[in-house]
Amino acid sequence: MKTIEENDYIRIIYKDKSYFKKIITGQAFHGKGGILDYASLIGKRYGMRYGRYEVYEPTIEDIIMYGLRRETQIVFPKDSAFICLKLGLRNGTRIVEIGTGSGAMTYLFSKMAGPDGAVVSFEQEERHHRNAKKNIERFAEWDNTELRNENVEEYACEIPFDAAFIDVREPWLCLEAARRLIRDSAPVGMIVPTANQISDLLRGLEKGFGLVEVIEILLRKYKTVAERVRPTDRMIAHTGYLVFARKLEQEAGEDQGSISI
Amino acid sequence: MKTIEENDYIRIIYKDKSYFKKIITGQAFHGKGGILDYASLIGKRYGMRYGRYEVYEPTIEDIIMYGLRRETQIVFPKDSAFICLKLGLRNGTRIVEIGTGSGAMTYLFSKMAGPDGAVVSFEQEERHHRNAKKNIERFAEWDNTELRNENVEEYACEIPFDAAFIDVREPWLCLEAARRLIRDSAPVGMIVPTANQISDLLRGLEKGFGLVEVIEILLRKYKTVAERVRPTDRMIAHTGYLVFARKLEQEAGEDQGSISI
Amino acid sequence: MKTIEENDYIRIIYKDKSYFKKIITGQAFHGKGGILDYASLIGKRYGMRYGRYEVYEPTIEDIIMYGLRRETQIVFPKDSAFICLKLGLRNGTRIVEIGTGSGAMTYLFSKMAGPDGAVVSFEQEERHHRNAKKNIERFAEWDNTELRNENVEEYACEIPFDAAFIDVREPWLCLEAARRLIRDSAPVGMIVPTANQISDLLRGLEKGFGLVEVIEILLRKYKTVAERVRPTDRMIAHTGYLVFARKLEQEAGEDQGSISI
Amino acid sequence: MKTIEENDYIRIIYKDKSYFKKIITGQAFHGKGGILDYASLIGKRYGMRYGRYEVYEPTIEDIIMYGLRRETQIVFPKDSAFICLKLGLRNGTRIVEIGTGSGAMTYLFSKMAGPDGAVVSFEQEERHHRNAKKNIERFAEWDNTELRNENVEEYACEIPFDAAFIDVREPWLCLEAARRLIRDSAPVGMIVPTANQISDLLRGLEKGFGLVEVIEILLRKYKTVAERVRPTDRMIAHTGYLVFARKLEQEAGEDQGSISI
Repeated sequence: MKTIEENDYIRIIYKDKSYFKKIITGQAFHGKGGILDYASLIGKRYGMRYGRYEVYEPTIEDIIMYGLRRETQIVFPKDSAFICLKLGLRNGTRIVEIGTGSGAMTYLFSKMAGPDGAVVSFEQEERHHRNAKKNIERFAEWDNTELRNENVEEYACEIPFDAAFIDVREPWLCLEAARRLIRDSAPVGMIVPTANQISDLLRGLEKGFGLVEVIEILLRKYKTVAERVRPTDRMIAHTGYLVFARKLEQEAGEDQGSISI
Repeated sequence: MKTIEENDYIRIIYKDKSYFKKIITGQAFHGKGGILDYASLIGKRYGMRYGRYEVYEPTIEDIIMYGLRRETQIVFPKDSAFICLKLGLRNGTRIVEIGTGSGAMTYLFSKMAGPDGAVVSFEQEERHHRNAKKNIERFAEWDNTELRNENVEEYACEIPFDAAFIDVREPWLCLEAARRLIRDSAPVGMIVPTANQISDLLRGLEKGFGLVEVIEILLRKYKTVAERVRPTDRMIAHTGYLVFARKLEQEAGEDQGSISI
Repeated sequence: MKTIEENDYIRIIYKDKSYFKKIITGQAFHGKGGILDYASLIGKRYGMRYGRYEVYEPTIEDIIMYGLRRETQIVFPKDSAFICLKLGLRNGTRIVEIGTGSGAMTYLFSKMAGPDGAVVSFEQEERHHRNAKKNIERFAEWDNTELRNENVEEYACEIPFDAAFIDVREPWLCLEAARRLIRDSAPVGMIVPTANQISDLLRGLEKGFGLVEVIEILLRKYKTVAERVRPTDRMIAHTGYLVFARKLEQEAGEDQGSISI
Repeated sequence: MKTIEENDYIRIIYKDKSYFKKIITGQAFHGKGGILDYASLIGKRYGMRYGRYEVYEPTIEDIIMYGLRRETQIVFPKDSAFICLKLGLRNGTRIVEIGTGSGAMTYLFSKMAGPDGAVVSFEQEERHHRNAKKNIERFAEWDNTELRNENVEEYACEIPFDAAFIDVREPWLCLEAARRLIRDSAPVGMIVPTANQISDLLRGLEKGFGLVEVIEILLRKYKTVAERVRPTDRMIAHTGYLVFARKLEQEAGEDQGSISI
């Protein structure tokens, strides 16, 4: 049975409030439900009430939402989960990410690519690169992630990647690099906040890509009272537009399969 | 470089139409773009145009949407991707599923649980169980999935599961079984089509669970014309309401951590 | 040309802020854009910049959103506009409202029913009735509205109404009264915040009503920057579910039209 | 009591099907519920079952959705109701419409503007103009509508309009005309299907207009089974983006109100 240990991260719930904390002997959580001494939790079970607090083991989503230090807008779980599926991520996948940002997507890619996969992520802004590096060092489960503080243009890799994800201001400028690094038929994903950027991306995808899709995901939460089932009053109205495509060779060779019309 | 081989599944695109086919020598695809002889593709590259067709290697999503044989309503990628994230799936996760249905969720769980994880899925309807078994045999990448044509109530397992997913008509009747099989603090997910079922589920989750969430995910597709960015005319308005919770011990022991108030 | 006059209500815009004020000589608006002396505006034009402020003549929507004093949750324009259309409101319509609340819907009904129509609205809570009365006295354009601080059950009217609207906690208890007061085939509208109430309403509408509809309206605002077209970050996720039906005689007489099958 | 009369339009419901028909003696409705002789309905009540059919008196919405002959995409009630509210329509309003199309919006404007208001609508395409004219002649309640088969540019009117609505492919080209025809502070509304057009409109509205808003309205229908409250499977995902603004004098005179900063 897994128990709470020194240096573990825990999620503490008190009424409607959620806290993400690290177990450090000698420290304590001071909340409205009283003082919770971390040392007293060591060796104890997760998923229990301790005084007025509930203490849970953090999930991947908890780490993305509450654990990672953000210096940029991150990709939210409603989008990032879908991106991982569209990009086919699973143990063994090798993915290249252009635009590490705060590393939220990178962290999830690392989890999904698993011990047999690899994530190589590019970030030109040194400050973001450093912050993402700390996030990955702190929370990654497997040593499968390489963060590079450089322009993807200069990067070469012998083994093509299985997928690419681009999250920069002008993703259309990175399409050629992404295309160069991924294998035949591989999926590429992008996220952009504005409709104007969709236009630019669609133009950029006209050559060398097929199966282009533009998708928006909306998440609506409901209140959790059995007698009064209804959505919450407010919701996030927009995070970004997701764009997906597959690498497609532009020119088909004359001898590329037997077609009779 | 990965090439098209005998018995591979391929995705063929002709204009707006999509086809999911298996490469079998001696057979051919007969479409409006002409006849495409499968044998002629063997050894050729994916992500190419062959005559008027584009041929892609199927992704996980393609297999869910076009590959699996459906005998029941399946959980769609917009929901299933999010469920996997909420349930913390990654290589090594052990998940129990109650209600295999057509096995779409099972297939995705298998992909996500990876070579080091495990999926045990229960289905009482023998016909669905058999169909799901064929789907898994045909498409699973790892031998990590056990399909059981029995009631989960009678099942015992020494090692607790990391997560549970329930997709049956009355999921509240399975909460106790799910709770019994998962470890402390572990997430459980459910999907129900109606608001009435949300009420019943919320009542069932009042004891033994915490962090209850009810969520609805909407996916909106956009047309892919750069000069005319706009959503498609119609969309899927509803698949199901997602309900999530974490296992929580009901009673906290007196000695369960030092709290001072 | 209409000009700003004493006792007029005006809408003042300063950057992203909106103010709803009354022109009173001797008073002034004190905002971040400076002091705007109301007397100095009298006789001046609407739709002008006065110093750093823009001053507009209030629309019906402005009055609903900023003018009416609210003591209860009001029906928002996205819903109330649609309700008016579904209920067929126009000059001459006679409508009965059950549950005046703050009178936002009543005010709009009054505007729509016009000089030749009539609005009779019932509110049992005296405090709400009084507040609504002030709102209507202050803003109504036509003297076509009767606010009654009583139970609709005791009310009788010789001329049947053209439509009914119910906005109370348990609208199913008012269906019979509404039905009694409206004419053949007339539409009735309701708004309820929860899905549980939809169930109760649907059961109540099974007899004596036809063409039942349940509808939800979502309004999403976009930012107004030409180079960055995108929805705002947050939105109202839920106001209420709208339910509509038409009065239907339960039993058809034997001699009610010639049908041959 | 209003009864069904010769030349009345009626709405017939049989199970899930809806029909919009005209009462003509000698004709009959032939449906799956049997033959319904129109003459036999004359003098009978609305809101009754005749054989297996329910017969209702059409509402404004019914006429828009089922009565008007469409030659173009029409503005749907979810949008048109909201537009009327934003434009402040009520008895007495004088509105100018640029782009009559099939006249669906024109018909609703006519209903809302009432006996004391006026609608002047411009359509350059003669075929659409003629079709709209027939629609208005057939269904308008008041003689308050003027349909003009000409370019709005050449039109002058002594009395300024209270509001303007533009529904043409390039509405930004009509902003100056609309502005010229409406009074100070008056609202103008537009509808465009694409995000690219929003950009163009926002640029066009930069001068001479204030209080710019871009809004999208989504309507979601629910099934009407009390025990299974849930949205329908599919919905209309997009009709158009609504853009609103108010006329604003660009330059404020030096003597336009007393401001002290």
